[in-house]
Amino acid sequence: MIKVGIVGGTGYTGAELLRLFAQHPQARVTVLTSRKEAGRRADALFPHLRGQCDLSFSEPDAAALAGCDAVFFATPHGTAMGMAPALVDKGIKVIDLSADFRLRDLDVFKRWYKLDHSAVPLLGEAVYGLPEMHREAIRKARIVANPGCYPTSVQLGLLPLLEAGAIELDGIVADCKSGVSGAGREAKVGSLFSEVSDSFKAYGVAGHRHLPEIEQGLADIVRKPVGVTFVPHLLPLIRGIHATIYARLTNPDLDLQQLFEQRYAKEPFVDVAPAGDHPETRGVRGANTCRIAVHLAPDRKTVIVLSVIDNLVKGASGQALQNFNLMFGLDERTGLQALPLAP
Amino acid sequence: MIKVGIVGGTGYTGAELLRLFAQHPQARVTVLTSRKEAGRRADALFPHLRGQCDLSFSEPDAAALAGCDAVFFATPHGTAMGMAPALVDKGIKVIDLSADFRLRDLDVFKRWYKLDHSAVPLLGEAVYGLPEMHREAIRKARIVANPGCYPTSVQLGLLPLLEAGAIELDGIVADCKSGVSGAGREAKVGSLFSEVSDSFKAYGVAGHRHLPEIEQGLADIVRKPVGVTFVPHLLPLIRGIHATIYARLTNPDLDLQQLFEQRYAKEPFVDVAPAGDHPETRGVRGANTCRIAVHLAPDRKTVIVLSVIDNLVKGASGQALQNFNLMFGLDERTGLQALPLAP
Amino acid sequence: MIKVGIVGGTGYTGAELLRLFAQHPQARVTVLTSRKEAGRRADALFPHLRGQCDLSFSEPDAAALAGCDAVFFATPHGTAMGMAPALVDKGIKVIDLSADFRLRDLDVFKRWYKLDHSAVPLLGEAVYGLPEMHREAIRKARIVANPGCYPTSVQLGLLPLLEAGAIELDGIVADCKSGVSGAGREAKVGSLFSEVSDSFKAYGVAGHRHLPEIEQGLADIVRKPVGVTFVPHLLPLIRGIHATIYARLTNPDLDLQQLFEQRYAKEPFVDVAPAGDHPETRGVRGANTCRIAVHLAPDRKTVIVLSVIDNLVKGASGQALQNFNLMFGLDERTGLQALPLAP
Amino acid sequence: MIKVGIVGGTGYTGAELLRLFAQHPQARVTVLTSRKEAGRRADALFPHLRGQCDLSFSEPDAAALAGCDAVFFATPHGTAMGMAPALVDKGIKVIDLSADFRLRDLDVFKRWYKLDHSAVPLLGEAVYGLPEMHREAIRKARIVANPGCYPTSVQLGLLPLLEAGAIELDGIVADCKSGVSGAGREAKVGSLFSEVSDSFKAYGVAGHRHLPEIEQGLADIVRKPVGVTFVPHLLPLIRGIHATIYARLTNPDLDLQQLFEQRYAKEPFVDVAPAGDHPETRGVRGANTCRIAVHLAPDRKTVIVLSVIDNLVKGASGQALQNFNLMFGLDERTGLQALPLAP
Repeated sequence: MIKVGIVGGTGYTGAELLRLFAQHPQARVTVLTSRKEAGRRADALFPHLRGQCDLSFSEPDAAALAGCDAVFFATPHGTAMGMAPALVDKGIKVIDLSADFRLRDLDVFKRWYKLDHSAVPLLGEAVYGLPEMHREAIRKARIVANPGCYPTSVQLGLLPLLEAGAIELDGIVADCKSGVSGAGREAKVGSLFSEVSDSFKAYGVAGHRHLPEIEQGLADIVRKPVGVTFVPHLLPLIRGIHATIYARLTNPDLDLQQLFEQRYAKEPFVDVAPAGDHPETRGVRGANTCRIAVHLAPDRKTVIVLSVIDNLVKGASGQALQNFNLMFGLDERTGLQALPLAP
Repeated sequence: MIKVGIVGGTGYTGAELLRLFAQHPQARVTVLTSRKEAGRRADALFPHLRGQCDLSFSEPDAAALAGCDAVFFATPHGTAMGMAPALVDKGIKVIDLSADFRLRDLDVFKRWYKLDHSAVPLLGEAVYGLPEMHREAIRKARIVANPGCYPTSVQLGLLPLLEAGAIELDGIVADCKSGVSGAGREAKVGSLFSEVSDSFKAYGVAGHRHLPEIEQGLADIVRKPVGVTFVPHLLPLIRGIHATIYARLTNPDLDLQQLFEQRYAKEPFVDVAPAGDHPETRGVRGANTCRIAVHLAPDRKTVIVLSVIDNLVKGASGQALQNFNLMFGLDERTGLQALPLAP
Repeated sequence: MIKVGIVGGTGYTGAELLRLFAQHPQARVTVLTSRKEAGRRADALFPHLRGQCDLSFSEPDAAALAGCDAVFFATPHGTAMGMAPALVDKGIKVIDLSADFRLRDLDVFKRWYKLDHSAVPLLGEAVYGLPEMHREAIRKARIVANPGCYPTSVQLGLLPLLEAGAIELDGIVADCKSGVSGAGREAKVGSLFSEVSDSFKAYGVAGHRHLPEIEQGLADIVRKPVGVTFVPHLLPLIRGIHATIYARLTNPDLDLQQLFEQRYAKEPFVDVAPAGDHPETRGVRGANTCRIAVHLAPDRKTVIVLSVIDNLVKGASGQALQNFNLMFGLDERTGLQALPLAP
Repeated sequence: MIKVGIVGGTGYTGAELLRLFAQHPQARVTVLTSRKEAGRRADALFPHLRGQCDLSFSEPDAAALAGCDAVFFATPHGTAMGMAPALVDKGIKVIDLSADFRLRDLDVFKRWYKLDHSAVPLLGEAVYGLPEMHREAIRKARIVANPGCYPTSVQLGLLPLLEAGAIELDGIVADCKSGVSGAGREAKVGSLFSEVSDSFKAYGVAGHRHLPEIEQGLADIVRKPVGVTFVPHLLPLIRGIHATIYARLTNPDLDLQQLFEQRYAKEPFVDVAPAGDHPETRGVRGANTCRIAVHLAPDRKTVIVLSVIDNLVKGASGQALQNFNLMFGLDERTGLQALPLAP
C-alpha cells in the first residue's frame, strides 16, 4: 500500500484528494496536514467523507511526511517550493497542485506570483503534469507540477490543432468560464453566494496568472510563441470549466472531427464528443474527463473548440491522481473510474 | 453476471440506475426500454454515461425482458402493475420504483392514484423495500415496492422513536423539502429553471400521495394509527431531501442520541450525525446514505429530527439497488460505495 | 426634503435602504457612514446604484449625523445603543435595524447577544416597528426597533390566529427557511457559494436569537406566554423567507380564510393569498409585501400558515422605510410601490 | 391615458410588459390576450402582479385591439406579421417583440424562420427599434421591430468602435452568455431546473437566428459586411446576458474609454463602466440599462468589450417600452426608472 501525505488539506482540492484516494485500492492517505485545523477530524470539516475517512489533521511535520511515499501539496502558492526539495531528496515523490513549479521562466514567475523562487534547481527538473503531452516524462519524474484548471482545458482543446499546424499561431481567443469552487474555500466577499449566485461577470481581463502558463504550454507544442487572448469569467455553479476557443484555420478543408478523434483515441481521460455536440460541464461533474467538441464556424474560416472539465478533478485533484498513478507505475485510471454525477 | 432489465429508462431514476449498475461487479444491465427513445443510445440522452454504458433503448418487449434475472420499473404509476405479474411468474425478480405496489389498501390507492389496481394478488405478496425495516422479507421477496423519497426520509427519521415508544402518536409534523429532480425529467412549466430557481414554496398542502405511504409505514411500526401533518416544499437545488420532523416526547429524559446510534449501529446506509449536528443535503449527494441528527428542542418537550437523503439514490435508485443486492444474496453495499460529491 | 443618515452602509440592508430611498420623493440620504469604506463612492461598491446615487461613504461623525432628520442604523448589534441616545436627544428620529432595541428584558438580551445594554432608558421608550401591530405607537415614536426578518414572517403569520383565540398557545411549530442574504455581506466560509449552493440544511436548532424576539412578540398579542419551536434553515437562494407554521386549532370550524382576509383587509403590505394557494418567495422579491396563505391540514385539527417575505425588504429595509414614513406622517407606502421582480 | 394592448401575455416578455406598465403614469394596459388562458386573471398566473394589475386574459379579438392606441406583440414568430397590417391601417402603433419585422432580407428571414413573410409592404417601413441607432426614425414609426436580446448587447458593444473605424471588420468574436429566461416560459426538457442548474454549455454553434440580425445591424453602421463569429451559451441564472466581444484594433493608441464615454454620453440607458471594470449581469437586473466596459487586451492589438443587459428588459420589454415612449413623444425614460435589484 503506497503511503500518501497531503499538505494543506482544508481546501477543496485537498478534500477532493481525500475523496478520490478513499476509492484507490493501492494507496492510502496517512498524513494530512493543516496548521489551522490540527487535531480535528477531516470528516468533521467534510461530512461527505464520514464513514470512509478516519484521518485527522496534523501540524505540518517533516518527520511524519518523511514516512510517506508521495506527498501532494494542496497549498497556496509559495509553500511547496519551501518544503519539496527536502522531500525529493529523501526519495519521496512530490505532486504540487499549486503554481510553484509550473513556470520555467523565473521572471515570469516573479511578475505573476510576486515571489522569488526558492527552489530553482528542483524547478529545473519538475515535469509539467499534463499526461496527454508529457506522459513518459511524468512516469520518471521525481516532482510533477500539476497544471492549472484553465490551462488544462485550453491546452487540451488546442493540442491537436497546434500539433497538426491547422491554425494560425496568433489571434487565438480563449473565452473561459469557471465555477466558483475554482476560487477556493477561503472566506472572501467576492465568493459569497449572495454575490455570485444569479449573476455572471468576467474578471482579470487585464491579466490572469493562468495566461503565462497557457502561453508556455502552447509554445511547447509548436516551439514558437503562440498569441492567446484569455478572458476568465465566473459562473454561478460549483464545479466546471467551459473553455470556448476560437482560432483561424490554415486549411478550412481539414476534417476537424477526425483530427481530434485520432489524436485522443488512446487517451483514457479525453473524450471527443460526437460531431455537432455541445458538451455540458455537468457531463463531467466529479469525473476526470475532459470532453471536447470541435466545430467549424459558419464563416468556414474559424474553428471553435468547446472544452469542458471539472475544475476540481481533471483541473486539479483528479489529474494529480492520474499523475501519481503514472509516477508509481500503476494503471493510469486507478481510483478514477467513478462516473460523473448528473443531473 | 446477473442480467438486469430497466423499463422506462429515460427519466432521472432510470439514468441513476444506469450510473449505479455501471459500477456493479456482479450485474449488468442488458435491456433498457423506452417507447419514445427506442433505437437511441442511452449516452446520447445522458452524456455523463459516455464510455461506461453501451446500451441503446429498445421497445418494451416481453421476450427481451424474459431473458433478464431482474427487472426494475422506473415508470410512471400504472405501468408496473400491468407487466410485473407475467415477469414474476417466469421467476424474474421485480423491483418497482413507482407507487404501484406500495399501498396495501386498494381504496387508498385508488383515491390517490386514480387507478384501479390490476394486480391485486401480486400486491398481496409485495414487500415494502425499506431494508432498515424489512430486510429479511426483502431477501425472500419476488417483488419489492421501492419506497417513495419523502417516505424514506420520514420513516427512517421516526423509526427509533416509534419503536422505543418515545413520542406521542399524534401531532407529528413532517416539514419536508425536496430538490427539483424529485419532479422528474418531464417538461412542465412548474419545473422550469426560471420558475423554481431563486425561489421557494410549499406545495400539496391539501394532500400529497406520499402521506398515505408515510402513514402506512409508521403504523406498521407501532401497530396503531400515527397522526402526521406532512407539508412538502420545493427547493431550488437538484438532488436532496431534508425532512425536519417534530414530535412530542413521552419521556424528556431519554438519551436521544444513544437511541438513534444504537438502532442504526449496524445499518450500512444510515449515518447518525454527531450530537448537535445539522446535516446538509450535499453531504449525501450521489450516495445511498440517510444521515440523521436528533435534537431536543429548547422547550425540552419536543424532539426535532433532521433527516437528509439524496432523493435519486436512497430515495429511489440507490435503495432499489440495495434491495436488488438483498434479493440476490449479495453484500448489500455492492455498487453503492462511491462517496458523496461535495462541494 | 427630509434628510436621512445611514450608519453602516456597506451591508445588504444598507444598500437596500439606498435603493429604496433613491425612489422616495420626499426624502434624501445625505450621510452614509462606513469606517472601512470612507471616501469611496457607494456605487463603486454597489454598481446597481450607478446613475441614481451620488453619495460617498464617510467616517461616522456625530456632527454630520446631527444635520439629519432621521438616522437608520444598519450596523452589527451593539453600535446603535451607543450612538442613538445622543441623536434622539437632538430630536433626530432613529430607526434601528439591529437587535439593540428589540428585546425589553435585559437578561434575555444579554443571554442572546452577550452584551450589557448601554441605553436602558431609551430601550424603555423604543417602539417595536411592526406596523401591523403597533402603527399608532410608531407614528409617535422617537426610536423604532425594526423587527428581525424571521420574527416578521412568523408574527404576521400568527397574528390573526392569536388575536382570535383560534389556536392553542403551546406546541406551535415555526419551520422557517431563509435565503443567504440574511447572513449578511460578511466574508464567512459558511456563506460561500460553493458551500451553500445546491444544498440545504437547518441551523441553530439548539437556539437562535430570533426565538426570544418571536416569543416576546407573540406574548404581547395574547398577554400570555406562547410556546413556539423555531427551526431556521438556509435556502440556496438570495432573497426570501418562507415560514411554515403549524398550530393546533381550538375550533376546527372557524373560517380561516375569512379571518385572515378581514384582519389584513386594510394593511397595505400584507396580502392574503387566495384559498388553497402556495405563495412563492419570488412573488415578493424586492417588494415590501408579506404574502400569507392559510390552510386547514387534512387532519382538520391543525392550521398551516405559509408566510413569505423578502428578508431584505419587509424583513429589514423596506419595513424600516415603512416605519420612517409613519414617523414622519407620510403615506405609509411612499417609495415602496415598485413591483416584485419575477421571474 | 394611452391605451395599450398586449398580444400573447403569458410568456416572460408579456409579464414583464405588465410589470413595467403598472408603473407608467401615462399609459394603461387595457387588452391582454391569450387563447390558452382566456378568462383567467393575469395575477393568477403571475402572483408578483397581485394588487397592481386587475387585468384578465381575453381571446385575441380584433375589435378589442382596435380600441388601443398601441399594441405590443409578445408572441412566437409568425403571429405579428398576420395581425399587424390591419392594426397599423387603423392608426394603431405596433411594437413587435418577435422577429417578424427585424430582418429586411426575405430570403434570410425564410432561411432562419422557415416562414414566408406575409406582410412585405409593412416590413418595408418597419423601423429597427434600437434607439441608440435609430431614435429619430423610431419617433416617426408606425411599426417598430424590437431587437433581439443578443443583438442588443452585441450591437451596443460594437457601435462606438464601428462608427469610429477603430476595428477590423472581419474576425470579430461575440462570445455571448444568456440566462434561461431567454428560452421563454415554454415547457421544454432543456429548460428544466434539473437540466440547466449547476451546469453550463454552448448551443447553436452551427448557427443561431440572432446571427443574421447582428450581421444586418453591424453592416448598417459601416455600410459594409461585418464578419462575426457568434456563439451563444446557456447560463444557470434567470435574467442576464453577458456579451464578451473580441476585435482587432486598427489603431492601438486610440483612447477606448473616451470613445465609449463620448458616444454614450447622452444615452439614458447605456452606462459606460469605469476603466478596468467588469460589469456583472446582476448590476442591471430588472433595469433597462446596458452597461459596457471596454478593455485593451494584454497583446495591445485586441479590444475586449464586456456588455451586459437584462434580457427581459433592455433585451426585450424594457426596450419595447423605451420605443413606445419615443413613438408617443414621451420622455424616453418614463416608467423605466426603477433601480436594478441586487443582490
